[in-house]
Amino acid sequence: MESTPEERDGALWPDIPRGPLSAYRERASFSSKELLLFWDGEDVLHFKKTIFKTLENDPLFARSYGTDLPLEKQRELNFLRCKRVLEHGFFQVEELLKEPLKIPALIHCLGMYDWSLANKCALHMLVFGSAIFNSGSEQRLKYLEKIYSLEIFGCFALTELSHGSNTKAMRTTAHYDPATQEFIIHSPDFEAAKFWVGNMGKTATHAVVFAQLYMPDGKCHGLHSFLVQIRDPKTLLPMPGVMVGDMGKKLGQNALDNGFAMFHKVRIPRQNLLDRTGNITSEGTYSTPFKQWRLLPYLAAAYALDHFSKTLFLDVIELQSGLIKGDHSARQAELGREIHALASAGKPLASWTAQRGIQECREACGGHGYLGINRLGDLRNDNDPNCTYEGDNNVLLQQTSNYLLSLLEHRLQDGAAFTSPLKTVDFLEAYPGILGQKFMGSSKADWLDSAALLAAYRWLVCYLLQGSHQKFCQEKKSTGSDFEARNNSQVYYCRPLALVFLELTVVQRFHEHTHSSSVPPSLQAVLRRLSTLYGLWSLSQHTALLYRGGYISGEQAGRAMEDAILALCMQLPWRLWGVTKWTDFVSQQLKDDAVALVDVIAPSDFVLGSPIGRADGELYKNLWSAILQQHGVLERAAWWPEFTANKPVANRLKSQL
Amino acid sequence: MESTPEERDGALWPDIPRGPLSAYRERASFSSKELLLFWDGEDVLHFKKTIFKTLENDPLFARSYGTDLPLEKQRELNFLRCKRVLEHGFFQVEELLKEPLKIPALIHCLGMYDWSLANKCALHMLVFGSAIFNSGSEQRLKYLEKIYSLEIFGCFALTELSHGSNTKAMRTTAHYDPATQEFIIHSPDFEAAKFWVGNMGKTATHAVVFAQLYMPDGKCHGLHSFLVQIRDPKTLLPMPGVMVGDMGKKLGQNALDNGFAMFHKVRIPRQNLLDRTGNITSEGTYSTPFKQWRLLPYLAAAYALDHFSKTLFLDVIELQSGLIKGDHSARQAELGREIHALASAGKPLASWTAQRGIQECREACGGHGYLGINRLGDLRNDNDPNCTYEGDNNVLLQQTSNYLLSLLEHRLQDGAAFTSPLKTVDFLEAYPGILGQKFMGSSKADWLDSAALLAAYRWLVCYLLQGSHQKFCQEKKSTGSDFEARNNSQVYYCRPLALVFLELTVVQRFHEHTHSSSVPPSLQAVLRRLSTLYGLWSLSQHTALLYRGGYISGEQAGRAMEDAILALCMQLPWRLWGVTKWTDFVSQQLKDDAVALVDVIAPSDFVLGSPIGRADGELYKNLWSAILQQHGVLERAAWWPEFTANKPVANRLKSQL
Repeated sequence: MESTPEERDGALWPDIPRGPLSAYRERASFSSKELLLFWDGEDVLHFKKTIFKTLENDPLFARSYGTDLPLEKQRELNFLRCKRVLEHGFFQVEELLKEPLKIPALIHCLGMYDWSLANKCALHMLVFGSAIFNSGSEQRLKYLEKIYSLEIFGCFALTELSHGSNTKAMRTTAHYDPATQEFIIHSPDFEAAKFWVGNMGKTATHAVVFAQLYMPDGKCHGLHSFLVQIRDPKTLLPMPGVMVGDMGKKLGQNALDNGFAMFHKVRIPRQNLLDRTGNITSEGTYSTPFKQWRLLPYLAAAYALDHFSKTLFLDVIELQSGLIKGDHSARQAELGREIHALASAGKPLASWTAQRGIQECREACGGHGYLGINRLGDLRNDNDPNCTYEGDNNVLLQQTSNYLLSLLEHRLQDGAAFTSPLKTVDFLEAYPGILGQKFMGSSKADWLDSAALLAAYRWLVCYLLQGSHQKFCQEKKSTGSDFEARNNSQVYYCRPLALVFLELTVVQRFHEHTHSSSVPPSLQAVLRRLSTLYGLWSLSQHTALLYRGGYISGEQAGRAMEDAILALCMQLPWRLWGVTKWTDFVSQQLKDDAVALVDVIAPSDFVLGSPIGRADGELYKNLWSAILQQHGVLERAAWWPEFTANKPVANRLKSQL
Repeated sequence: MESTPEERDGALWPDIPRGPLSAYRERASFSSKELLLFWDGEDVLHFKKTIFKTLENDPLFARSYGTDLPLEKQRELNFLRCKRVLEHGFFQVEELLKEPLKIPALIHCLGMYDWSLANKCALHMLVFGSAIFNSGSEQRLKYLEKIYSLEIFGCFALTELSHGSNTKAMRTTAHYDPATQEFIIHSPDFEAAKFWVGNMGKTATHAVVFAQLYMPDGKCHGLHSFLVQIRDPKTLLPMPGVMVGDMGKKLGQNALDNGFAMFHKVRIPRQNLLDRTGNITSEGTYSTPFKQWRLLPYLAAAYALDHFSKTLFLDVIELQSGLIKGDHSARQAELGREIHALASAGKPLASWTAQRGIQECREACGGHGYLGINRLGDLRNDNDPNCTYEGDNNVLLQQTSNYLLSLLEHRLQDGAAFTSPLKTVDFLEAYPGILGQKFMGSSKADWLDSAALLAAYRWLVCYLLQGSHQKFCQEKKSTGSDFEARNNSQVYYCRPLALVFLELTVVQRFHEHTHSSSVPPSLQAVLRRLSTLYGLWSLSQHTALLYRGGYISGEQAGRAMEDAILALCMQLPWRLWGVTKWTDFVSQQLKDDAVALVDVIAPSDFVLGSPIGRADGELYKNLWSAILQQHGVLERAAWWPEFTANKPVANRLKSQL
C-alpha cells in the first residue's frame, strides 16, 4: 500500500521536541527543513528517514542502556540485525543502482546506528558481492542470488598477519594442479595467516582469498583472488584444511567478527579464480620507515615530562611542608601561586601529549594496535579522563595565563619586578630586550644549539604575553566588557601563552638536568640529544608565531629547524657523517638509541601486558599465541542455527511509508 | 630476612630476553643500566622493580587475555587488589615521607599495571587521607588509622551533575543547627547530586563532601568541606537520607567505581566540618564560552567532507560504468589514477578530522563525555580503524603525492600539460605564475573573500609540489638512493603536499556547490559562511608554510586570518555590527545557526542513542534518567563481605627482597 502524502510528510518532518535548545533553533538564519531538502534531495532524505524510523520501531534494534553484552551475544545480535536489514528491504539492488547516492546514505544510516552492522552488511553484500560480480565469472549470477538470500556469507581476505595492505608482500600461495584442474590454496606459516578479515571470525562461509599464483612452470604470476569455501553453510563448521578463528575483542566495532584463517593445501576448482579483481591496485607501494620518526619525539617528551613532574612534585612537597609548619610568609603564598600556575598548564600539556602519543603508537601499529589484547586501547581510554578531571584542560590553561598577565600588570602599574620563588618567570624582567631579539642562525647546527632553542622560547613567551595583554586591553576598550575581552583574547593569545610558558619551563628544567655535573659522562650525549629533540619538536609547533612576530624570517630558518629535528631522529647515510660541522655535535642519532631508551622507562612485560609490546620483540609469535589462548577462539558460534536454518525472506518487512 | 646483594641485584636487573630487538639494543650509544640508575636513583629503582616483581608473582594480579569481565567483577577484583597492595606493604607512610619521590613512583607503577587500581588506592589513601589529615581535626589520627586498616573507605565529593569543577557554582548545602550542634547536608535537586566521585559507586563508606555553608544568620559562607558517612561499614548499605549509586560503564578505568550521591537532610556532628581544606583554590574561575568555538569548525568540516565524499562517490560510479562498458581509453585510465589519488588522501583527511572532532566533543562535554552511555566512546572507537584499514593513512598519502610528482615530472621532461579528467590538477598549468603570487590583503575582510582563500591554497600546493620535487632530486643526488630520497622528502614535503592538495579540492568543490545557482537564496548566506569557515580553518593549519614561502608577511596578515575565523564562529557585540565592511559580508554569525545546522545532519535521537545528545537539549534530565535505568545502579555490591569482614593485615606479604 502506498503512503499518503501526509504520512510521507510526517516521516520526513518528525516533530522536533521542545526544550532548552528551542530558543537556539529559533535564532537560526535559515529554515532547517529547506536545508535538509537541498542537502540530500527529497528521495534520499525520505530513504534516510525511513531507515531511521524502521530501526526505531523494530524491537530487534532496541538499544540497551548501560548493559555490556558479551562478545558472543554482540555478534549474534549483529547477525540477526543484518538479516533483518534484508527483510526491511533496504538493500534493493535496482533501487540503489537507479539512485547511487542511496548506497552511501544507506551505509551511513546503518553506521550511525552501529558501524559494526553497517560494515557487516557492506562487507558481505557490497565488497564480497562486487568482487564476485566484477570477476566476470560464469557463475556470478548464481552467487549473487546466494549472497542476497544469505545462503552463503562472504568476506574479503587480503591482509596477512605479518603485513598489512602491502599487496606485493602477501605470502599465501595458489598452485595450479593441471591434473585435477584445481588450485591448491596454502598458508606457508602462521605469519601468512589471513588476518583481520571482517565477517571471517564466526559467520563467513566463503572468502575472496588473495594469493600468489604459481603455474606448473614454477613461476609466480603475482597476486590473484580466489573464491574459497571456508565453512559448511549447513553447519557453520570449518571446511577440511581450513583453520579459522575469531580475533577477539577490539577497541571498537565489537559486534563485527573479524577473523583469521590458515589454509592447509585446500583444493578449489579452476573456476574459482576470480580473474578480474579490479579492486586491488598493484601500484608500487613504498613502505615507509618513518614510523620511527613519528614516535621518537614522544619518547623524548616522556623523558622531559617525567623529569618535570618529579621536580614539580618536589616543589609541592616544599609547599606542603610550609603549610604544616604554619608558614604565612609572602614567599609561601607566592610559591603556592607559582605551583598552581605550573600545574594548571602541566596537566593539559602532559595529558594532551600522552593522548597524541598513544594515538600515534596505535596508528603506527596498524590493525594490531586496534586489537584489544594489545592494550593500546586501555592506555588511551585510561589516559583520556586526564584531559577533563580536576578541570577541563582549556579552563585550566586560563589559570596560567592569568598568573602571567597579573605579573605583567603589577610590573606596568607598580613597577614590581618579575620574580617568583622557583624563578620560572624571572627571565621576563628582561622582556623589552627579549622582544627585540631575532634568530640569527641559518643552519641545522644553529638550531641544535640549546641556547638558540631556549632563546626562541623566551621570545615566544614575551611575544604572547605582550600580545595577550594588548589584545585584552584593546578588546576591553572596544567592548567595555571584561568578560568579552577575556573571550576574544583567549583562543589565539592566552591559550598558547600558557602552553608556551610551560613548555619553556619543561625544556629549561630538562636542559639543566641533562647538563648538570651529576650526569655520568657516558650518558651526556644521549640525554642532551633527547633534550634538544623535545625542545625543537615542541618549538616547531609554534613556527607560525615565530615567523609572524619576525623572530625568524626567510625560508632557510624554518627549513633548518625541520632538518635539525629530522637529523636528531633519523640515521643519515654513513657517507655524510663527520663531513659537516653539525654532525660532530650529534655524532650519533637517536634512532639507534631508541630501543634502549624505551627499556629504561618501560614497565615489565607482565605489567605492560601487551603481546606486541614485549621486550623480546617477537611480536608476531606473541600475538599469534595470545590470540589462540582466547576463549572459544576456534569454536563455532552458539547461534549457528540462526544462519543455517532461519533464512530471511527478503523485503518481507519493507516499509510502505 | 634481608636480601643478599645478589638477590637485590637480580631484582634490579632481570634478564632482558633475546629476540629480534637484541640487535637494536646492541647499537645503543649508552648502557641502559647506567641510565636507569641515573634516572631514578637506586632506591626508587629498587622500589619500582620490587612492585613489578610482586605484582607478577601474585596470582591475584594475573592478567586474563581476551576475557571481558563484567563491570561488577572488575570492581570486585580491583577492591581485592587494593587490599592486597596494603598487605604487600607498598603504602608505608614513614618510608614514603622519607623519600617522597617514591609516592609518584608507586602510583605510576600501579597505574602502569592498571590505572583503576592506582586511582582507587590514591583516592582513598592519598586524596581522602590528606583531606582528613590536613583538616586540623582533633580526630584526624583516629581516622588515619581507620583509613589504613580499611575500616572505612573514602572518596572526595566535589563535582556535581550540572557543573564540573567550578567551585563557586556548587549547590549542595550545609546548614548549621545550633540546637543540636549539627550540620544538615542537603542536595536541593538532582542537578546538585554529587557526580563522578571515584570510589563512591560501590565501596566508599565516607565522603569528603563540598557544600555551601549556611550559618543561622541565613548568610552563605561559601564552599566548605565536611566528612559525611554515606554507607554503614558493617553492611555497605547506604546511611539514612543518602541515595548513592554507581555511574556505570565509562570509556576506560572501569574497575574504578565512580558514583553519585544525593543527600536528603543528612545530619552530621559539628566536628565533621573540615576547616582547612587546602586543596580547593577559590581563584575566580572564568567560565569560557569558547567550547562553541572549538566545535564550529568541525561542523563546517562535516558539511564540506560530506559534500566531497558524495561527489567522489559519483566519480567512482562513472569509473565503474566505464569498467563495465569495457572502456579502455586513456581517459578512463587517467580517471582511475585521479580518483585513486583523491581517495588516498581523502580517507586520511576525513578519518583524522573525525578523530580530532570526536575527541574535541568528548573533551568539550567534560566528564559526561567519558560516560559509556553517552556513546562518544563508541563513536571514537568505531571511527578509529578508519585511520588504519585499506592502508595506513601516512602510507596512503604517498599515493597522492606520487601522483602529483609524476605529473610534474611529465611536465618537466615531456612538456605534458597538467590536466586530468576531473580537472583537480588543471590549475597547476599556471604554477610558475602562481608561485610568484602573494597575499595582498591586510584585514579580516580580505580573508573572508573566498577568492583569497582559494588563491592561497593553490599557491600552497604549487609551493609544496616544487619543494617536494627539489628536495627529492637533491636528496637523490646526495645519497644516490631513490629509497632514501623518498624518506628524506616525506615528512615535511610529500605528506603536507598530499593533504593540502586534497583540502584544496574539498574547499573548491564545496565552494562551487555553495555558489551554484541551485542554492535557494535563503540558504546562500549560511552555506557560504560554512564554506569559508572550513577553508580558513584548514588553511590556518598551514600558516607557518605561508609565512615561510613568503606568501604572507608581517604580523597583520596572520592576525587577520585568525580574526576572520573567530568572526565567523563567534557572535560579536551588537554595536560592532554593520560598522565595518566585513560585517556586511557575514552579517550574521554561525553561532546562531549552529543548532539548526546540527539538526540537518544529525541522525534521529534513537539512532544516536546518547542521553546528552538528544534533540530536546534536556541533557541533565536525560542523563539522570538514563543512569538510573542501568542495571543494579543502586544495589549493594555482591562482594560486600570482602569489605566488611575480610580486613587486610597491613604489610603481611611485604617482600623481603
